[in-house]
Amino acid sequence: MQRYKDLIEARIDAWCAALPIGGLYPPMAYLMKLPAKRVRPIAVLMACELFGNKAEDALEEALGIELFHNFTLMHDDIMDASPLRRGDPTVHVKWNTNAAILSGDALLVKAYEFMGERPAVLRLFNRYALEVCEGQQFDMDFEQRGDVLAAEYMEMIRLKTAVLLSCALQVGAAVAGASAEQGAHLGKFGEKLGLAFQLRDDLLDAFGETERTGKQRGGDLRAGKKTWLLIRGSEAERASRGSLLADQLALTPEARDVVLMSNELERLGARQDAEALVQGLERAALDELDAVDVADERKAPLRGLATMLMGRTA
Amino acid sequence: MQRYKDLIEARIDAWCAALPIGGLYPPMAYLMKLPAKRVRPIAVLMACELFGNKAEDALEEALGIELFHNFTLMHDDIMDASPLRRGDPTVHVKWNTNAAILSGDALLVKAYEFMGERPAVLRLFNRYALEVCEGQQFDMDFEQRGDVLAAEYMEMIRLKTAVLLSCALQVGAAVAGASAEQGAHLGKFGEKLGLAFQLRDDLLDAFGETERTGKQRGGDLRAGKKTWLLIRGSEAERASRGSLLADQLALTPEARDVVLMSNELERLGARQDAEALVQGLERAALDELDAVDVADERKAPLRGLATMLMGRTA
Repeated sequence: MQRYKDLIEARIDAWCAALPIGGLYPPMAYLMKLPAKRVRPIAVLMACELFGNKAEDALEEALGIELFHNFTLMHDDIMDASPLRRGDPTVHVKWNTNAAILSGDALLVKAYEFMGERPAVLRLFNRYALEVCEGQQFDMDFEQRGDVLAAEYMEMIRLKTAVLLSCALQVGAAVAGASAEQGAHLGKFGEKLGLAFQLRDDLLDAFGETERTGKQRGGDLRAGKKTWLLIRGSEAERASRGSLLADQLALTPEARDVVLMSNELERLGARQDAEALVQGLERAALDELDAVDVADERKAPLRGLATMLMGRTA
Repeated sequence: MQRYKDLIEARIDAWCAALPIGGLYPPMAYLMKLPAKRVRPIAVLMACELFGNKAEDALEEALGIELFHNFTLMHDDIMDASPLRRGDPTVHVKWNTNAAILSGDALLVKAYEFMGERPAVLRLFNRYALEVCEGQQFDMDFEQRGDVLAAEYMEMIRLKTAVLLSCALQVGAAVAGASAEQGAHLGKFGEKLGLAFQLRDDLLDAFGETERTGKQRGGDLRAGKKTWLLIRGSEAERASRGSLLADQLALTPEARDVVLMSNELERLGARQDAEALVQGLERAALDELDAVDVADERKAPLRGLATMLMGRTA
């Protein structure tokens, strides 16, 4: 894992160092250099190696995927009015909204510089880039709606987060010249893994141990964030004519009792539903990886990536 | 001219009609369907025909250029806090800022769908798309500065507006398989024409007749907008130790006497300087068109486009 990460960090450092001084560029370099796991570009490199090429062959595309991811972060942070990203000020706070709009636009153009070298890669990227925008649109729409279904929420996180991991893996496969069929298995592996990862994140917020996650437990519940868990719990509550969650959500965030809420989610079966769903997705993801037609030992790095994403506690 | 415009309007209508319903898409269709001259996509088609292809061969790229142009309009209107675009509400006013950010992002992705079909086109487009972002950045920086030089202003409008016309012409030439040298002549034709067009716009604001332009005379002067004319005039005023313009600019917009200001610009020689610059640019633009190595009669449509842009009074 570290070898891939080192390759990517070195490429990002070189890219940042070559940027012109001033203007559009300091916000780009700032965001690209914040500490990050680099899951998506690592996935590009691993997928490329899986089909017999060297990781280095897909390094430009890995950089392109990370540039695109950072473009989405820069604009999403404006739209969500987030002051912090992993503890550091967001670009629109450190600079201003206009700088974040424009540097984000330029990051997207920069991403295309690296995603446009191979026609097969560009086709994949165009399709998934639009889906990521659609996912963010759903997310914003959902904030205005009280009636979001659990299935709609799943589709939203599929578009907003899972498809980019799927795209990264398919891009790596395309660089290595894998067939569309082989790439599709890897793409589904990424999509299901991405969904499982996001759902597990919801579960950890409500039921994780603070000393392991390092985050305040119940932050999403306090904010009334419509996670899959809360949507599913509210559906079950309405079906059983209960009102504890609805009553809590009617309070101000400060007044909410998040322990009471998470206990109720457990009692309503939402926790078990979510855990069953996560486990099903993880199993299905690994089945897709099994279906890829290369020697099993070559799959070790991607299994490692999956284990990391599946076993995460923070 | 009308034949090219009809082709483009029909292509835009078909594109809008094929968009999914709701979500990201209504703001895109709204902006794309506002009345517009379609100068850039017309330039793509004309350049393609100049080198012996049919206009239709470059219709997808013409659409891509217009999508990109509308992406810049959607985001620039947010950054400039403009409530109206040619009399109609801007997207961030008609919807909201988040919708304008996200639909703009998706418009840029959509533009790449059409600009990515040919590697030579994609290379040109990537380069110029970034320059357009840099131009907008300069424009925003200049608003914070009192010391912008006339030469800096020229570079800003070159990047912000002239390079996209240049790009459009080079894209059309590339679709037709023209050599880089031939494309470069056409690109310089577009760049100089674009600069002349923008400078003429400044002149018309200060000295145009309202009954011909249809706009309130002196709107830029009242707003204190740093046009080339005002920058040049202020430079000349400082050199001659005058203060009329500086005193007027120190007033509120409502209190400014724009007739006094435009008379002073004339007295200081800024009007004559701007007119000489415009004429020089227009001559240089036509010289570049002359240098293109195709039969002179084929150049008639592009000469017509130049005449339209040069002779504009509104």
